[in-house]
Amino acid sequence: MSNYVITIARGYGSGGKTIGKMLAKELGIAYYDRDLIRMASEESGINESLFGLADERARGGLFRKKGEYREEPLAPDSGEFVSDDNLFNYQAKIIKELAEKESCIIVGRCADYILRERSNVVRVFIYAPREACIQNVVDMYGMSPKEAEKLIEKTDRSRSDYYKYYTGQNWDNARNYELCLDSGGLGFQKCANIIQEYMKIKFND
Amino acid sequence: MSNYVITIARGYGSGGKTIGKMLAKELGIAYYDRDLIRMASEESGINESLFGLADERARGGLFRKKGEYREEPLAPDSGEFVSDDNLFNYQAKIIKELAEKESCIIVGRCADYILRERSNVVRVFIYAPREACIQNVVDMYGMSPKEAEKLIEKTDRSRSDYYKYYTGQNWDNARNYELCLDSGGLGFQKCANIIQEYMKIKFND
Repeated sequence: MSNYVITIARGYGSGGKTIGKMLAKELGIAYYDRDLIRMASEESGINESLFGLADERARGGLFRKKGEYREEPLAPDSGEFVSDDNLFNYQAKIIKELAEKESCIIVGRCADYILRERSNVVRVFIYAPREACIQNVVDMYGMSPKEAEKLIEKTDRSRSDYYKYYTGQNWDNARNYELCLDSGGLGFQKCANIIQEYMKIKFND
Repeated sequence: MSNYVITIARGYGSGGKTIGKMLAKELGIAYYDRDLIRMASEESGINESLFGLADERARGGLFRKKGEYREEPLAPDSGEFVSDDNLFNYQAKIIKELAEKESCIIVGRCADYILRERSNVVRVFIYAPREACIQNVVDMYGMSPKEAEKLIEKTDRSRSDYYKYYTGQNWDNARNYELCLDSGGLGFQKCANIIQEYMKIKFND
């Protein structure tokens, strides 16, 4: 196998980011999540803070209703209005370029959908029961369980809306992914191990 | 690990049954799917054909609306009416007894939900893209692709309604399971291999 991409969609507090970083280190490949914003900003000349505002949040676009997004050619020099859809398209372009040229992990940002036609992609979804996510967030950020739960609900709703808007699919529907793992009982390291075994069986046998 | 159960929910034509049988053979454990009907029939004294009619089909129950199912104690000798909910309860009782006494594979029948509180259970969901399912059904039963697609749609709708009615959850939501696999690109044997690797990592490491 030449280069490959592991995309990781993840519930907030499920450890998807940590698992992605573990995998990147163990496999010796690059890791991307919010870096994609800076890269898309550089590519497009649009201020990074604008991307940050739209990052994994569907604000409904400016000219279309929810779920009506369609991929369209970019016209960066045409002076057209900077909509969320444009920001998404720039990020999608970066993700496709990365998949073309290097092996890497990409967390979030509908990367599974953006790269859905490629054979060198492993599309993973990581989630965990609510109580496990709360505990993880409490441990990581030191907030109260109640605050953690609110943050999880809000972030997952954003991610779900964003995914629905750009892909037309339900974010936590297994059929969007080829491997879905509940990190709750397993823990993060075992999830990383299973993804590696999956890769071996899928590509090497 | 003493005894364990692998539950397999599966899209029609995704090969879940074949994968389950492969696993049962490789692991040297029992395999159950429709046998559960006969066993529930023997247990309850209710005619097997009645269970067959209700097998993985939600007919809405007789006294409750869809989604209103609640587990209730059985009263087999009370002369109460034989409803679909009673049939479900008998099958659930058999599934719990099996999980208690032996290692096995159980395909379908909301076994993941029925056994959700047990730690010796691996809850798997197998699915595949529509085209892959059609091809599998055509190969297996020799019908036309059009007939295969109709059968897949109808069967998956039944299974989804049945699951929703008895669990309150969406059947293809990843969060109901701890391991979801798309058999489309992988093929059946590799799915069986991955489930075995998952078991090793989960229980033995």
